[in-house]
Amino acid sequence: MTTNHTTTAAAIGLDDCRRMDAADVLAPLRQRFALPAGDIYLDGNSLGAQPVAAAQRAQEVVTQEWGKDLIRSWNSAGWVDMPLRLGNLIAPLIGAGENEVAVVDGTSLNLYKVLHTALRISAQDRPQARRIISERSNFPTDLYIAQSLCQQFGYELVLIEPEELPTCLQDDVAVLLLTHVNYRTGAMHDMQALTAAAHAKGILTIWDLCHSAGAVPVDLHGSDADFAIGCSYKYLNGGPGAPAFVWVHPRHVNRHAQPLSGWHGHDAPFAFVPGYEPAPNIARYQCGTQPVVSMALLECGLQVFAEAQALGGMAALRRKSLALTDLFIQLIEQECAGHGLGVATPREHAQRGSQVSLTREYGAGIDGDSGAYAIVQALIARGVIGDFRAGGGPGSRHLDILRFGFTPLYVGFEDVWHAVAHVRAVLQSQEWRKPEFNQRKSVT
Amino acid sequence: MTTNHTTTAAAIGLDDCRRMDAADVLAPLRQRFALPAGDIYLDGNSLGAQPVAAAQRAQEVVTQEWGKDLIRSWNSAGWVDMPLRLGNLIAPLIGAGENEVAVVDGTSLNLYKVLHTALRISAQDRPQARRIISERSNFPTDLYIAQSLCQQFGYELVLIEPEELPTCLQDDVAVLLLTHVNYRTGAMHDMQALTAAAHAKGILTIWDLCHSAGAVPVDLHGSDADFAIGCSYKYLNGGPGAPAFVWVHPRHVNRHAQPLSGWHGHDAPFAFVPGYEPAPNIARYQCGTQPVVSMALLECGLQVFAEAQALGGMAALRRKSLALTDLFIQLIEQECAGHGLGVATPREHAQRGSQVSLTREYGAGIDGDSGAYAIVQALIARGVIGDFRAGGGPGSRHLDILRFGFTPLYVGFEDVWHAVAHVRAVLQSQEWRKPEFNQRKSVT
Repeated sequence: MTTNHTTTAAAIGLDDCRRMDAADVLAPLRQRFALPAGDIYLDGNSLGAQPVAAAQRAQEVVTQEWGKDLIRSWNSAGWVDMPLRLGNLIAPLIGAGENEVAVVDGTSLNLYKVLHTALRISAQDRPQARRIISERSNFPTDLYIAQSLCQQFGYELVLIEPEELPTCLQDDVAVLLLTHVNYRTGAMHDMQALTAAAHAKGILTIWDLCHSAGAVPVDLHGSDADFAIGCSYKYLNGGPGAPAFVWVHPRHVNRHAQPLSGWHGHDAPFAFVPGYEPAPNIARYQCGTQPVVSMALLECGLQVFAEAQALGGMAALRRKSLALTDLFIQLIEQECAGHGLGVATPREHAQRGSQVSLTREYGAGIDGDSGAYAIVQALIARGVIGDFRAGGGPGSRHLDILRFGFTPLYVGFEDVWHAVAHVRAVLQSQEWRKPEFNQRKSVT
Repeated sequence: MTTNHTTTAAAIGLDDCRRMDAADVLAPLRQRFALPAGDIYLDGNSLGAQPVAAAQRAQEVVTQEWGKDLIRSWNSAGWVDMPLRLGNLIAPLIGAGENEVAVVDGTSLNLYKVLHTALRISAQDRPQARRIISERSNFPTDLYIAQSLCQQFGYELVLIEPEELPTCLQDDVAVLLLTHVNYRTGAMHDMQALTAAAHAKGILTIWDLCHSAGAVPVDLHGSDADFAIGCSYKYLNGGPGAPAFVWVHPRHVNRHAQPLSGWHGHDAPFAFVPGYEPAPNIARYQCGTQPVVSMALLECGLQVFAEAQALGGMAALRRKSLALTDLFIQLIEQECAGHGLGVATPREHAQRGSQVSLTREYGAGIDGDSGAYAIVQALIARGVIGDFRAGGGPGSRHLDILRFGFTPLYVGFEDVWHAVAHVRAVLQSQEWRKPEFNQRKSVT
């Protein structure tokens, strides 16, 4: 029987959240992670949680592979194959093919490689195109790398707001450099539509997947993207500072050598010949020797995704991620109304990553501050771990942000309930006004 | 009483080696390393041994700092300070000042940064100088990086033999790029004299210290060097692929931004502003987030050097290194005469690093081969771990090399005795001719 009159949405309760956990097909994966007792960890978009397997693997790689087998482990433990072996574990999460992804270096370095290559290709094919377009609120390191290459090769970096994207893709643009999911707001671009709009003008696209890989379905081939990079220490749970990944579409990959031409990208690295000959395909995007222990731990993070594959893979992770973020938004509105919190993250599913960013207006805190920083610190003191990202100051369209990441591999629906209860308690009690929560730390 | 008539050198025996061990002031440091039982490890010039402390530290950083403290560890565990904190542990080993060394990225990447900067400085000060000089037998990755920058900026890479150095430093040279201790032969350049000769023509110097740092005394300031780079996983025992280091003389460091301008090199990395402003001093040579676990293990390696300081430091390490390599050469000549082994490493102490490279002529092995590869494999099967480096083929001045590194922190004099006994046994028994020792592996 259906009713066709409007009903008032019933308030969501703790029992509802527990029912969602009971129905969660991905719930068994939570035990693959060593989550600290008493904490609700909503900062997996900054540093993913530790896979349980990583502790044992660390012992093995340190005391056996390094300690006992020593130099022999380059062959016997497969150290030399790690960049492409790990790349092949990431490839299915981002719609890349076999042996098209390398895990190597850091995100900024990989961006330098692919943007350098994109500019070389563009200079040959469309020499009149001298601009790089990116978002003003892109993660800054992407902009810093672009600035370096612009200065070196006489390009102009043009920073826009997202609503300017449709009109800015013109004949003078060489490269569109976007982060798929915005680190501040969690807003997600339409990769396929923007790539098509760029290609219609001959513009090459570079997608930063730092907040996408392992968090939302990505289809690089389906979107016909040109280049992609991303880190492994957020939703991929690779460990602090674990090496990043790089993908180049097969139509571009062998066209040029990338500039950071270290020996591991050579066609015959152990021949020790004096002349550089790049390896075929993505292997050429390697540079020097990789940090083996950090690489080995990343493999533990990626193996959880192999296990998730049997439970529905990225589609199931996406369903849970949207359910978690929907629930968080609904509960914030239900439980914390009247405390000056806004929602910066799009409510439209197609435009949302796996995080929710709340806002506070400037002046809502102490001495013209928004209070957002202090609220985040008060929540951390209660074991609810999110983070703060500063806005552009009074008058800016970018407000201060309280950022909460929802990693569907290990965050549950009851976690969301308790997190919101802590947000309400911090706001109602005014405990965020305490001086200790208003002192800024070096890393926030 | 002194005798002034010539005596025949008495043969060295095992007891002599044991007496040298008993008199070794650095002997207590051996127990700081988890050396595999039954092996004699003479490949610390490729991958240094595991400090005992690294096993415990790996557990701590994985299960406590990552697993329990998670994102908070950037502050609480000092992750954010690691690049300069570790740099300050390396600085006294290479004659650099406080806060002048950063531990970051890899050797090839750091070379890209400093060579790029050196070329910018040279282009301003001496625009007519368009050549980079390096050694033909330099470690290839240095040459590959130089080739990339030459192609980008219109320079010419000129490769020379060491004896050509005095005459090739002319007005058309921008940069002299040398590895201080040659990876094949163990020959060591006179850093001070060559830097002075280069500076007399206005040429900038870049020193690769991969086979020097922790192995031989280096005095960057005393030599008035301009730039230096080096890895941490050889004599510094930082672990496989542990991040590398970079030093820039204070007279150059703030002159330009380096090109790999990631956010950790920004003056205010956590302000997340869109415009790049390089941090003052060596901090600007950082790029992205570093692999924290690998960095933490490197710190264990560096702490052994802090302990060595109380036992005489680099001067004592150098005395022992020379005594070990002298002993190895003497014993090879005493025990293995007539088996076609030559010594490629200089006998002059001032020209020797901390390794000894033996040679075999082409044709001394099977099917025109030198036999060097197979001898190394036969030694490895016996637990004597050295490595093989191919020469240039028949007719080349570069013969096949059997490479033995002597890390004075953990190699003893009795080890040298037994290693040479195995060399003699492998040669006398001809066991190196077995087929299994003549099959090449992917990494050698």
